[in-house]
Amino acid sequence: MNTLKLDLKARSYNIIVGSGIIGLLGKTLRKLDIGSDAYVITNAAIKNRHGKALNKALKKAGFTVRFKTVPDSEKSKSLKVASEIIEDIICHNKKKRIFIVAFGGGVIGDLAGFVASVYKRGIPYVQVPTTLLAQVDSSIGGKTAVDLSQGKNLVGAFYQPRLVYSDVGLLKTLHSRQIKSALAEIVKYAIIKDPALFNYLQKKHKDILALKTAPLEFIVKRCSHIKAKIVEKDEREEKGVRTILNFGHTIGHAIESAGSFKKYNHGEAVALGMLLASDISKNLSLINNNSGQKIENLIMAMGLPTRIRKIPVQKIIKAHYHDKKFIGSKNRFVLLGGIGRALVLEDIPLKVIQEAIKKRVIC
Amino acid sequence: MNTLKLDLKARSYNIIVGSGIIGLLGKTLRKLDIGSDAYVITNAAIKNRHGKALNKALKKAGFTVRFKTVPDSEKSKSLKVASEIIEDIICHNKKKRIFIVAFGGGVIGDLAGFVASVYKRGIPYVQVPTTLLAQVDSSIGGKTAVDLSQGKNLVGAFYQPRLVYSDVGLLKTLHSRQIKSALAEIVKYAIIKDPALFNYLQKKHKDILALKTAPLEFIVKRCSHIKAKIVEKDEREEKGVRTILNFGHTIGHAIESAGSFKKYNHGEAVALGMLLASDISKNLSLINNNSGQKIENLIMAMGLPTRIRKIPVQKIIKAHYHDKKFIGSKNRFVLLGGIGRALVLEDIPLKVIQEAIKKRVIC
Repeated sequence: MNTLKLDLKARSYNIIVGSGIIGLLGKTLRKLDIGSDAYVITNAAIKNRHGKALNKALKKAGFTVRFKTVPDSEKSKSLKVASEIIEDIICHNKKKRIFIVAFGGGVIGDLAGFVASVYKRGIPYVQVPTTLLAQVDSSIGGKTAVDLSQGKNLVGAFYQPRLVYSDVGLLKTLHSRQIKSALAEIVKYAIIKDPALFNYLQKKHKDILALKTAPLEFIVKRCSHIKAKIVEKDEREEKGVRTILNFGHTIGHAIESAGSFKKYNHGEAVALGMLLASDISKNLSLINNNSGQKIENLIMAMGLPTRIRKIPVQKIIKAHYHDKKFIGSKNRFVLLGGIGRALVLEDIPLKVIQEAIKKRVIC
Repeated sequence: MNTLKLDLKARSYNIIVGSGIIGLLGKTLRKLDIGSDAYVITNAAIKNRHGKALNKALKKAGFTVRFKTVPDSEKSKSLKVASEIIEDIICHNKKKRIFIVAFGGGVIGDLAGFVASVYKRGIPYVQVPTTLLAQVDSSIGGKTAVDLSQGKNLVGAFYQPRLVYSDVGLLKTLHSRQIKSALAEIVKYAIIKDPALFNYLQKKHKDILALKTAPLEFIVKRCSHIKAKIVEKDEREEKGVRTILNFGHTIGHAIESAGSFKKYNHGEAVALGMLLASDISKNLSLINNNSGQKIENLIMAMGLPTRIRKIPVQKIIKAHYHDKKFIGSKNRFVLLGGIGRALVLEDIPLKVIQEAIKKRVIC
């Protein structure tokens, strides 16, 4: 079991990473003065698979436990579901000292964190992420939100959890597409911040794809550390430090959207976005051919796409200019100065972007 | 014009108090790097009375201005109205650098602050309170919220404004019942924290009730200062420092509720609650008869009630034990050790409370 500290002064918390540690969660929570009554927000599939273990761990440590399941869908990230949950908490938990346990992937984490942030102006919550993506990314940093019909994450708060508890033992039951989506983000961390992790991923990609415990634990720990350091420097995304986390995401979102969110899932689109950012960096002579090739090889080894199939270049460019990351008419890109070194650049000429996309598109 | 600073490090802001200063608001905002587009949340009555002046002040300083009116009712403090406002902001303000102006009393301030706290995980907002109660109390300290059918303020956030701008010139059009409700809170500040303010209120109560400018400005400044100091010490109400602000409110709420929120409004009930807390303090020999009499005289001079009419003692006691401020079975009271000195005491015997109430009730 590894403990990392995310240091935000009064809002500091630990990130605990291990394998088969779910049974010890109650004991860890006992040390936090967090309340006495656990309100677990999850979905039916996760509850079926891991609910018993969580329930036992919490009860053993003297907590009362109530489970609340929401549909396993982005649609659960709504104000409607959030208020239903709050009403359920009020109804069943009068006079109790409630804290919330977000037990699931990114949707559950965002929703449960938002509920915790607004109920009675904030009650404690902990993240117990059950997907690889949530363990390496969304469970850390206190970004909570629900969606509106006008767009994703439009209503939310920066509200830090009291603990992030990542048991890689919970990941064994994930589907390979879920894993791959997370791997895109893990490759991202390696490319923007951590050449040693990059080398590790090169060597261990087969073991990772086979969901072996040791490499999973290693990458979750490593990525959690990277994410934590970035959050410490820029908790509310005001200083631009978190901008480099958008590496691969700017064009990635455009590809996702140009493919009507069907042709590529988020992870696949991010993989393509990273490749394009790498191509552009190469064309601008910011990195050499060798680095570009290494990046492409790793993305391929992870089972992620390296070619954009059947989406016209112009459609991607058009979607790209609708991206929220453009303020006014300036574009802003996260590019590379080498593996492990991200650069934020503005006003990349449209022609350079177009050329790069053109070379990756297969009609 | 007086400027007080509320010091919360990165979340610090100024409280500006003056008379006839609304025309200078735009100029003050210009210094804040707060955005370029003012989204003013208000109600129709306030917009009719003061909207033109606000609009002019903001436009003169180069801001775009959009007004959004909500019904003048506690019912506007709902998730439904909050999401309608957010949808309106999204609809009309793409690509703009929005900040919110809460232009109204406590309802508007709580609602607008909540919208600002959750839209895109927080955008800037300023409080321009138009009631005496909002100027001395609710506009300061970042407590934002909406209500649920299960209770008041159940969904909200601690989210500080970037400025509180109190123009006592806006108060001239208020009704005397609105003023009196605020006076109960002002008397409260004096009793718990400020003997000099207490003396001032004794001397100037006629001028205050006549809404003369100089005393209004003095009391808003003084109360803002007291509130600011308390918020600085305990921003999120975690350390119990803000507990003394509940002086008069524990039994006050019970009286309000036992009278079905019709017999007494909030200010009147708080006045009665303060008197009872003073009576209990006297009975426990914490203060002398003279102090108790002074408190009663001031409350009477402010036109607030000193006797509870036609509510059975037992009904008040019963409502009292439903108050959220009781955790478990312990009661907790803010009592007095003198004028200007609040004490927080637990486990006051029921008999002492009953005796005090009995003496104030007229059947």
